[in-house]
Amino acid sequence: MTMRYWLPSKILAMFFALATIAFGADKPKPRARDLGIPFSGTPGKFNAITDVRGVEVGHTTLISDGGKVLPGVPTVRTGVTAVLPNGKHCDTPIFAGWSSLNGNGEMTGTTWIEEGGFLEGPVMITNTLSVGTVRDAVIKWGLRQIHGPGPKKFGEDWGGLPVVAETDDSDLNDIRGFHVKEKNVFRALDSAASGFVAEGNVGGGTGMICYDFKGGIGTASRTIQDPGPYTIGVLVQANQGERKHLMIAGVPVGREMPEKLTNKGGKGSIIIIVATDAPLLPHQLKRLARRAASGLARTGTISHDGSGEIFLSFSVANGGAYQAQGHAGVLMVTNDKMNPLFEATVEAVEEAIINALIAAETMTGINGRTVAAIPHHELREILKKYNRLQEGGVKH
Amino acid sequence: MTMRYWLPSKILAMFFALATIAFGADKPKPRARDLGIPFSGTPGKFNAITDVRGVEVGHTTLISDGGKVLPGVPTVRTGVTAVLPNGKHCDTPIFAGWSSLNGNGEMTGTTWIEEGGFLEGPVMITNTLSVGTVRDAVIKWGLRQIHGPGPKKFGEDWGGLPVVAETDDSDLNDIRGFHVKEKNVFRALDSAASGFVAEGNVGGGTGMICYDFKGGIGTASRTIQDPGPYTIGVLVQANQGERKHLMIAGVPVGREMPEKLTNKGGKGSIIIIVATDAPLLPHQLKRLARRAASGLARTGTISHDGSGEIFLSFSVANGGAYQAQGHAGVLMVTNDKMNPLFEATVEAVEEAIINALIAAETMTGINGRTVAAIPHHELREILKKYNRLQEGGVKH
Amino acid sequence: MTMRYWLPSKILAMFFALATIAFGADKPKPRARDLGIPFSGTPGKFNAITDVRGVEVGHTTLISDGGKVLPGVPTVRTGVTAVLPNGKHCDTPIFAGWSSLNGNGEMTGTTWIEEGGFLEGPVMITNTLSVGTVRDAVIKWGLRQIHGPGPKKFGEDWGGLPVVAETDDSDLNDIRGFHVKEKNVFRALDSAASGFVAEGNVGGGTGMICYDFKGGIGTASRTIQDPGPYTIGVLVQANQGERKHLMIAGVPVGREMPEKLTNKGGKGSIIIIVATDAPLLPHQLKRLARRAASGLARTGTISHDGSGEIFLSFSVANGGAYQAQGHAGVLMVTNDKMNPLFEATVEAVEEAIINALIAAETMTGINGRTVAAIPHHELREILKKYNRLQEGGVKH
Amino acid sequence: MTMRYWLPSKILAMFFALATIAFGADKPKPRARDLGIPFSGTPGKFNAITDVRGVEVGHTTLISDGGKVLPGVPTVRTGVTAVLPNGKHCDTPIFAGWSSLNGNGEMTGTTWIEEGGFLEGPVMITNTLSVGTVRDAVIKWGLRQIHGPGPKKFGEDWGGLPVVAETDDSDLNDIRGFHVKEKNVFRALDSAASGFVAEGNVGGGTGMICYDFKGGIGTASRTIQDPGPYTIGVLVQANQGERKHLMIAGVPVGREMPEKLTNKGGKGSIIIIVATDAPLLPHQLKRLARRAASGLARTGTISHDGSGEIFLSFSVANGGAYQAQGHAGVLMVTNDKMNPLFEATVEAVEEAIINALIAAETMTGINGRTVAAIPHHELREILKKYNRLQEGGVKH
Repeated sequence: MTMRYWLPSKILAMFFALATIAFGADKPKPRARDLGIPFSGTPGKFNAITDVRGVEVGHTTLISDGGKVLPGVPTVRTGVTAVLPNGKHCDTPIFAGWSSLNGNGEMTGTTWIEEGGFLEGPVMITNTLSVGTVRDAVIKWGLRQIHGPGPKKFGEDWGGLPVVAETDDSDLNDIRGFHVKEKNVFRALDSAASGFVAEGNVGGGTGMICYDFKGGIGTASRTIQDPGPYTIGVLVQANQGERKHLMIAGVPVGREMPEKLTNKGGKGSIIIIVATDAPLLPHQLKRLARRAASGLARTGTISHDGSGEIFLSFSVANGGAYQAQGHAGVLMVTNDKMNPLFEATVEAVEEAIINALIAAETMTGINGRTVAAIPHHELREILKKYNRLQEGGVKH
Repeated sequence: MTMRYWLPSKILAMFFALATIAFGADKPKPRARDLGIPFSGTPGKFNAITDVRGVEVGHTTLISDGGKVLPGVPTVRTGVTAVLPNGKHCDTPIFAGWSSLNGNGEMTGTTWIEEGGFLEGPVMITNTLSVGTVRDAVIKWGLRQIHGPGPKKFGEDWGGLPVVAETDDSDLNDIRGFHVKEKNVFRALDSAASGFVAEGNVGGGTGMICYDFKGGIGTASRTIQDPGPYTIGVLVQANQGERKHLMIAGVPVGREMPEKLTNKGGKGSIIIIVATDAPLLPHQLKRLARRAASGLARTGTISHDGSGEIFLSFSVANGGAYQAQGHAGVLMVTNDKMNPLFEATVEAVEEAIINALIAAETMTGINGRTVAAIPHHELREILKKYNRLQEGGVKH
Repeated sequence: MTMRYWLPSKILAMFFALATIAFGADKPKPRARDLGIPFSGTPGKFNAITDVRGVEVGHTTLISDGGKVLPGVPTVRTGVTAVLPNGKHCDTPIFAGWSSLNGNGEMTGTTWIEEGGFLEGPVMITNTLSVGTVRDAVIKWGLRQIHGPGPKKFGEDWGGLPVVAETDDSDLNDIRGFHVKEKNVFRALDSAASGFVAEGNVGGGTGMICYDFKGGIGTASRTIQDPGPYTIGVLVQANQGERKHLMIAGVPVGREMPEKLTNKGGKGSIIIIVATDAPLLPHQLKRLARRAASGLARTGTISHDGSGEIFLSFSVANGGAYQAQGHAGVLMVTNDKMNPLFEATVEAVEEAIINALIAAETMTGINGRTVAAIPHHELREILKKYNRLQEGGVKH
Repeated sequence: MTMRYWLPSKILAMFFALATIAFGADKPKPRARDLGIPFSGTPGKFNAITDVRGVEVGHTTLISDGGKVLPGVPTVRTGVTAVLPNGKHCDTPIFAGWSSLNGNGEMTGTTWIEEGGFLEGPVMITNTLSVGTVRDAVIKWGLRQIHGPGPKKFGEDWGGLPVVAETDDSDLNDIRGFHVKEKNVFRALDSAASGFVAEGNVGGGTGMICYDFKGGIGTASRTIQDPGPYTIGVLVQANQGERKHLMIAGVPVGREMPEKLTNKGGKGSIIIIVATDAPLLPHQLKRLARRAASGLARTGTISHDGSGEIFLSFSVANGGAYQAQGHAGVLMVTNDKMNPLFEATVEAVEEAIINALIAAETMTGINGRTVAAIPHHELREILKKYNRLQEGGVKH
């Protein structure tokens, strides 16, 4: 597979850099609650999945032409996002669970999570056709990370069954060009950091479309005190929904903005990652993952046939359970204390999706197709019409 | 188990009759859309599960004391509801699927539905502790219904694995009195009819509580044309939710009506039955059942730990598949036509739950506890405040 | 439902007593390994599920006519078996998991076990049509057992979602007579004991047929040292299989004993209960339950369409997890130590099934049908022919 | 990842060619029943998965050094196997179902099969770390295959969610060298053919180990007449089990051949593919997939913690269901006719695993480790000792 059209790579690298500035990590942008969209619950410091201790997020955003469709240059609008439950320490598997609302998508590694109860490395999200490349790359990266003579030959196991999920960006991206490369995956992993998480047209979410508006990556978090103090953090790659169903804060926004700019017909998908520091067992994490469906439903979608709505949750507590010698003592929240965790999950999922919509910016992609961002001013007017605008916004 | 305290039974029978009049089938009552609550989609003639051809519903409502708590008389606020997919013809199993959002409840028969793909008789809903009695009774009733020497000894199979579901009415009902009797079950089955379906404090829903308001039975339907014409009909026994989460038409009604009249803390459950005449295979019906979660989420609940949220769907099409000789030719909607069915399911589930709330009436039950119905006038004022009141209502 | 034909009840009570003597708990009978059938692994003291500390088993065996088919007396060949994980202390839920190989059967309570991870009371096994009666009765019994003001109002929850499983004894029993009564259920529960467990035509297994031989209850156990010392105990109600598939110790016994004495055609079912004192989490117990399929397969069955092959496992360790205040510290075996537990489960399931066959005695039942026990001498000859007879037998 | 050590490639190509001759498709080798191992049921013409009409199999076998461990040459003992349900016509999705006995492995695409009921392309099997590469390649191959202006833009969908499964060959293969390349995948797909299927050290099975003997690819089939005539074909990539558990025709072969030549400790996996032309719906195919567990158990394994035992079944009947316009008429076998299909599946899975063992040849791999093939003569002696040798063998 020659890649001549990528040359000259230095110019493209410059484009990448520009793209990173334009879409990426550094510019302060309003988030959903800054616009006055009301949400319930108390977010963490960054209102992001990284509010869960140890969780890091890295994006590689691939926009080959600086956002313009250029002759002779493939229209790359894609990327990869890495969620690292334990930062770079991949040798600490943690409890996890998963659930699917409509399984028209891929998340590798779920069969082992279901069986063994552990997530053994980073969670990667990319476009549909790059799952293979990302799987190869994350294994190589993981093998590289394994240091030291642990009591268990953990490195042997590690790379085997990584979690790589996808949504389909083919409406904006030259998906069949397989533009995500090994080095891009390494970069997402190596650049992962705690704290602020870029949203919108970044990483795996770069070319995604949500409710026929520009979508992408979104994140949010909630803190709870009883049980606790604990944090629930959510990250979504939002590519789902039809305009007419879009509901924000209960307001039928989609019906108020009826212009249909894409022809996706609800074909896209959404990947939802729920992280927590609450000590939950695998079957309890599956319960949390199932609550992602309730948060998603609050944004209005009916979960289309073509949508891969796959949810993963993990807990950074009980970090030593996997590598213990024969027996492990672990902590669990009792079932009768699960409700605050469920509530926080539903709320954070809802807000993360709306954050993806708010952060995403209008993009022109393959075949000159343009997908508009949701207009912030018009959205505020609609919320006001339904008496749901929280004047002044809510600082996160 | 002697039942002396039931005497004098004739007086109680009179109470039952009065109760039936008061709470039952005959009085025209406003439904959700009569009050101006907006819903999407086109309901069928009765806006009820019975809009699906062949489906019949019967209730037995057990209120021992006419609604007053009397000394020496057990406080009975319970009953049983029968949903007959093929009327009284129990010898025609049909395709079915099921799903659970939070499985803190019972629905017998699901293991065989999952395996074999068929629902083999009526669907019964009652209180938690009466599942056994109802299971026995529906088997006896089913065996009685089997006539004729069909090509397959169907009667042998029939009674074995019936579907009986439950929610817990112990906040209003003397549930430990086991007041549902075999004859009550027979009555629900024998009185089942198509057409109008009584809602609120009837049948299995008699003593139920929903979002800390009085709940119970609710129903709704949608018709679709492509694929179609087909009908989706839903019946719920609604006993779930906490006041603060209640959302009607996207409006945070629960937060606007903060008075907490019960101490359930989200412990209750909801059973959702989805019927259709669209020809769907078992795995497609499971997909429909999963969409009940999305409709439920639109009413605001986070699906509490204590809630049994169990969903069953069936299709009355392909009626001959079970009894065919060796091979059966069956019809299926192709996957790419499923979206209208998903949308109709989500919409009808949402409306059925709200219908249950609107139809239910204030009830005083065991230990003198009173659970108030949702106040219709106040609800309309709140909807108006949020510009969501559809003036004049929508006729169904 | 009048029961006049049961009179004179005292005579029948005598029959019961005789039946108990004839088929029941007291007579020493050879077990599979006494006959020289070879098995792997090390059984516990009683080679029974009761080798797991705290586990008790009780049977009520209902044989109305002393084993003879009498005019005017219903041919009752049924019963109920109770497995109590914690003896009579029903207020200590324990971790559990379940699995189904072919789900043409009922095991109530599984939806909550799957969701919540806990088994909250006894496990009951009976005939297909008595599940309702047994469910009612075990709830009443459980409510009676709850004493004292624990930190959590556990009694409130208890009775709600019991586990009641079944297999179909209609080939020998007047199943439509619903002969299992509340008092019979209480008796099975109240008489439960640790130590020796009666096998064959007892309890729920009274009228069962296995590989076209007389079947019923069987039990076995294994002890392991690493991890450990732990015990795996198994109890089966064996009603499954076709003669031609029967394999004992790998020998095609069914083909060597081709006489077909029943016309079941593989319609029966098997319920398998796996108990352990190894500290396993719910998702690990599900793994154990799945291994029951492997043990079952070693006896040759193909798991027929009509068979309800449903498996439940529980761990008596971590007894305080349910009732802990907010958080519970629990112990788990690490995944890499699971193999000895898997092996012990497969072995004990295989032996329990063969024990059921060996213990069962020839029975004449409804319509005068007789089902023969597997002939011990002939079986030994066949094993010898295949060089698999362990001369002298192996003492358990 | 530089690959300089691969040069000179022409010499290696020669090695490949030699390897193909040595291990590959052309040499007639005895199969299990040729050695006199008894099996039940009637196999099809080739006793292979290709007896199911339309099914084609292709292998690419990668052995870099002609089977000798050479200094400076990576020890490649791996490959990829393609099972094409409809030959090269990838535009005809067919009904499928899957199941996992112990999910410590990867099979991509299962979430969509579970949801939508269709298998949309080839089934690929390779080593654990090559799943990504194979996924990429099969997508590219599939996109290339799509011809013609079908009524549905099928090509859009096709490549998205392929099925790629794996087992771990790191005991013999330099798995971290990622030696399976895109072109190798194309070759397996393009060379796929009906008829004879090479077994043992070929394709994805090249470096696999089974019950501590050399394992790999195995296949078998059964034909049934009622319902039917239908064929069940099975292909396995066998890498599972511990020597001591190996059972062949019910004989404890593993205990009779106690030498332990590997240190795998049951870590390997098995992928089982079940094909049929019987018209089964997705939920029925899941039932078939579950029966793979029973066939596997007959070979003695306890299904270790480290084993990925993942089973896929598909039916080549009802080929037009996916692409029908809105509705599809499909045929199904009625549930009461499933038993012969279950029996055929159990039998064919058992024989396919034994065929893999019999066909595999002793191999020396990475770090000079040698894994011996099961010795045919000694095996026959053991079968004779247990009176299970079918003298003269059984021709297939």
